[in-house]
Amino acid sequence: MDHSYRPSLVQKDALGSGVLPFAGSDLVLSPSQWSSHVVGKISSWIDLDSEDETLRIDSETTLKQEIAWASHLSLQACLLPAPKGTSCANYARCVNQILQGSNNMQLWLRVPLVKPDDDSMDAKSVALVDSWETWNSFRLLCEHHSQLSVALDILSTLPSPNSLGRWFGEPVRAAILHTDCFLTNSHGCPCLSKRHQSLITGFFNHSIQIIVSGNSVHPKASVDANDNSGTNSQRHPLRPYLDYIGYLYQRMDPLPEQERFELGYRDFLQSPLQPLMDNLEAQTYETFERDAVKYIQYQRAVSKALLDRVPDEEASVKTIVLMVVGAGRGPLVRASLQAAEETGRKLKVYAVEKNPNAVVTLHALVKLEGWEDTVTIVSSDMRHWSAPEKADILVSELLGSFGDNELSPECLDGAQRFLKQDGISIPSSYTSFLQPVTASKLYNDVKAHKDLVHFETAYVVKMHNVAKLAPTQPVFTFTHPKHSDKEINQRYKKLNFIIPNDTGSAMVHGFAGYFDATLYKDVHLGIEPSTATPNMFSWFAIFFPLRTPICVDPGSTLEVHFWRCCGSTKVWYEWCVASPASSPMHNSNGRSYWVGL
Amino acid sequence: MDHSYRPSLVQKDALGSGVLPFAGSDLVLSPSQWSSHVVGKISSWIDLDSEDETLRIDSETTLKQEIAWASHLSLQACLLPAPKGTSCANYARCVNQILQGSNNMQLWLRVPLVKPDDDSMDAKSVALVDSWETWNSFRLLCEHHSQLSVALDILSTLPSPNSLGRWFGEPVRAAILHTDCFLTNSHGCPCLSKRHQSLITGFFNHSIQIIVSGNSVHPKASVDANDNSGTNSQRHPLRPYLDYIGYLYQRMDPLPEQERFELGYRDFLQSPLQPLMDNLEAQTYETFERDAVKYIQYQRAVSKALLDRVPDEEASVKTIVLMVVGAGRGPLVRASLQAAEETGRKLKVYAVEKNPNAVVTLHALVKLEGWEDTVTIVSSDMRHWSAPEKADILVSELLGSFGDNELSPECLDGAQRFLKQDGISIPSSYTSFLQPVTASKLYNDVKAHKDLVHFETAYVVKMHNVAKLAPTQPVFTFTHPKHSDKEINQRYKKLNFIIPNDTGSAMVHGFAGYFDATLYKDVHLGIEPSTATPNMFSWFAIFFPLRTPICVDPGSTLEVHFWRCCGSTKVWYEWCVASPASSPMHNSNGRSYWVGL
Repeated sequence: MDHSYRPSLVQKDALGSGVLPFAGSDLVLSPSQWSSHVVGKISSWIDLDSEDETLRIDSETTLKQEIAWASHLSLQACLLPAPKGTSCANYARCVNQILQGSNNMQLWLRVPLVKPDDDSMDAKSVALVDSWETWNSFRLLCEHHSQLSVALDILSTLPSPNSLGRWFGEPVRAAILHTDCFLTNSHGCPCLSKRHQSLITGFFNHSIQIIVSGNSVHPKASVDANDNSGTNSQRHPLRPYLDYIGYLYQRMDPLPEQERFELGYRDFLQSPLQPLMDNLEAQTYETFERDAVKYIQYQRAVSKALLDRVPDEEASVKTIVLMVVGAGRGPLVRASLQAAEETGRKLKVYAVEKNPNAVVTLHALVKLEGWEDTVTIVSSDMRHWSAPEKADILVSELLGSFGDNELSPECLDGAQRFLKQDGISIPSSYTSFLQPVTASKLYNDVKAHKDLVHFETAYVVKMHNVAKLAPTQPVFTFTHPKHSDKEINQRYKKLNFIIPNDTGSAMVHGFAGYFDATLYKDVHLGIEPSTATPNMFSWFAIFFPLRTPICVDPGSTLEVHFWRCCGSTKVWYEWCVASPASSPMHNSNGRSYWVGL
Repeated sequence: MDHSYRPSLVQKDALGSGVLPFAGSDLVLSPSQWSSHVVGKISSWIDLDSEDETLRIDSETTLKQEIAWASHLSLQACLLPAPKGTSCANYARCVNQILQGSNNMQLWLRVPLVKPDDDSMDAKSVALVDSWETWNSFRLLCEHHSQLSVALDILSTLPSPNSLGRWFGEPVRAAILHTDCFLTNSHGCPCLSKRHQSLITGFFNHSIQIIVSGNSVHPKASVDANDNSGTNSQRHPLRPYLDYIGYLYQRMDPLPEQERFELGYRDFLQSPLQPLMDNLEAQTYETFERDAVKYIQYQRAVSKALLDRVPDEEASVKTIVLMVVGAGRGPLVRASLQAAEETGRKLKVYAVEKNPNAVVTLHALVKLEGWEDTVTIVSSDMRHWSAPEKADILVSELLGSFGDNELSPECLDGAQRFLKQDGISIPSSYTSFLQPVTASKLYNDVKAHKDLVHFETAYVVKMHNVAKLAPTQPVFTFTHPKHSDKEINQRYKKLNFIIPNDTGSAMVHGFAGYFDATLYKDVHLGIEPSTATPNMFSWFAIFFPLRTPICVDPGSTLEVHFWRCCGSTKVWYEWCVASPASSPMHNSNGRSYWVGL
């Protein structure tokens, strides 16, 4: 709309009959150009929470007219001006009405990364300096609508890294970089501070579009630049800024191969495997077997165990009985045999596998490799197999993203019957870890199912559009072999996460879960971020959602309870938040999510 | 169970085979006695949130065994011991599992009205002296389950009236009165302090059962009492306490007739009328017409208006044109004619009614009363009627519980066409009011529908099991006649309710709405509690639920926004909470609840 347009004035002048054109002609672009190249910009004067009722009603009318015009042109998105002042309820109500009644148009709410101090003088707004809170209030009022996202206004001042980090869990679509946050380099050209550079790199990593905005404040730049095309005079005044952004993009390290491989999985929710109830498919075995790093760790663990168990002087006479329980198509059999070869120890291997389809491949492998004398294949569930002898070493790979979530404890309990009293289990222990995260994308994907079940399910997911709000903490630990039959596999843990003061308030959409396993002594394997085994791709993290996201204040404690519950036919988790406010109990009696025994 | 029973000890002794009987025989009572007369009492030693894992697991096992035994006996309810210490998450998880998997048994959680200070010495528990917070945490973890309720332990110390008041919005089923909170009267008999007495009266009014518990600390009472039955020696030692409670009950004022009539409507949600879209039934007219007080107020208003409009000297020559718009079966016609008679003014009455069925009754009434010369019946919607002349006075009764919610503004806008420039509207204005309430019963009834629509609907309801958390505040005002056509009927109001400091924290399940109308000058009519017209029964309050109850801290501000939105075919409300936390916008675009034009 024309900047001076106000519905209340028009009505007085035009007396209701001849409505004047309220916007320029749409014929300057083709329909497909409008729908693919243009983001609408809603009039920046609108203020739906003004104390002035006329301005408020004018604003609502104009907003709805402009959105209708943008819809008419099939724009993909419109940029909404930042809420003015401290309250945004009426603005949010109006935008929510648009979203509820809408086509697929995205609405990008402008939010300044730091609220300018001189924005407003009254005492109230000083309290609300954190613009994230305005955004949070707005999106809560709009119920986390999936078509509502953020366009961040970047100014010269940046908040703390923790405060910035929150935005990587939010639906940020664009970053509007104002020319006055650029510095001047020795050539008089625009450049950015180190902190701004790393922020921009973060945006690139999260596919956030960069918009350069404002007047050219580096006039020398366009003059000094050597432009071989000779069309120097026609260069856009913001071109030097764009060139610099382009340079930052070019300069980025290429993605490691593993990350590139996992690109398609980013923030994509998968149901965890049910390895006991379902048999894996050949493709799944194929994928997991390619994880070389994992089997190198297993080989190292078996080697160390063999050396501990058989002194050099007995190497030629003593044969170690090693059972691979859950042998699949044989990767741990291979790793174990390689460990024997490496250490010069004699091995007798039982490969126990419950999936008859994998057993077919196992037989073929043994024949192909000529392992017939060493390896005995057993087609049985380890929990029910009557072993002909007891094992020195049990080797298994039954771990899920959250450690015990694929029922490794229950399976190894069953296998422990045929482990010698002083026998070794590889892994010897494993621990799960959790941390609270902002994850609006994941939350919305869960919510899209519109049922309780999906909010009470844990998901395997390559987390990317996520903000980690506190360091991980250990949850459940299992050790094998057990010392006593009395040890139960149910667990209960209360965790207190402290939200750093400089984060500001943040939204917890759920918990990211990981594991770390001790295979044998100092040989470990895991995905807990601070100790993760590099270049391993068998496990993504696990995500436990919250039915209602919980807002946490800076410096506050988030008290979380997790249970591992065991029934006669299934194992499940229950979880809840107890502070700052109590959530409902999630997954009571395993009603929504469980792993069958 | 036997007091010394602990599952962990039994297992060691009995070696799993011969399980000892864990409870006394059920044959002492008949099955129907068990199911109608007995409330089970769960072992008070259980502590599911103990730091001691053995005690925790023993507690869980015992709780589940005892509940199973109570279910076996078809008990209607079990009394659960109060949570010990500051945390109750594991207790709540276990109770929630029972509730989720349950039959219809009620679980009554004991909650001390005031937490004894000597309960625990550690610093943590001192912070949490308010036992309501423990209850709130527990029931949130159990998702407001309708079978979970409260048994309040009453001790000698009582908290502030505001703090006590909260419980009348909660599902309190029983009050356990300890003998040591009784005083001794001059005869050495037990009696209660004034504050305890009024609390007990409050319990009676809310059908809360009273349980007397503890040792007799008034030994003289049983000796001194003159018992005519001569079985003095067999009297139960707590009999004097029970007698005193009985005396308090006897002493209560009988319920006023209106309250008795409304007993069956208490806390029963009704959908508001759609008077424009639907025609009322004869029964409904019948009920409303019996509200004598209302029509006396109307008669007073019309009388005053007539006296103002016609000076005594013109009384015999000037005829006032009075139109009853929405005449129904004629009560306002009658009140107007009585006002004319009372004041000696001459009246010409038009009775405009859109419901053709009511018009039939109107004709009969006019004939019966011999009003043919004075009253003209018009079978038409007031918004479309072409009046043959203009009115001096418009009389209408189009108000709903929330004032404008039955579209009085829109109807009177339509009728204003045939009101003289200086004409009078009765009512001349009306204002709606709101206040936040705790209303767990209403919340659960709304929730039972398991859909969004019911959470975004306003209900007419006789509120009883409700705690009012702050004084009412005015919301929307409409004045008739309007001064200008430009005045719109859409409205927006931001309200800030301050929760009194001595209330403690409380749960807001929604808002109670009322109206007050100025019929003419000082003659008003309304249901706003502080100014309500006595003995009027035409309107119950209105209840606006919240999709997610919001917990408010003592002294905090609850910021609420209400909108009245107008479309071409309907009018609706939207509402939200913006502080202490933002709720979703309720009823966006009137998707769930609206009144048709």
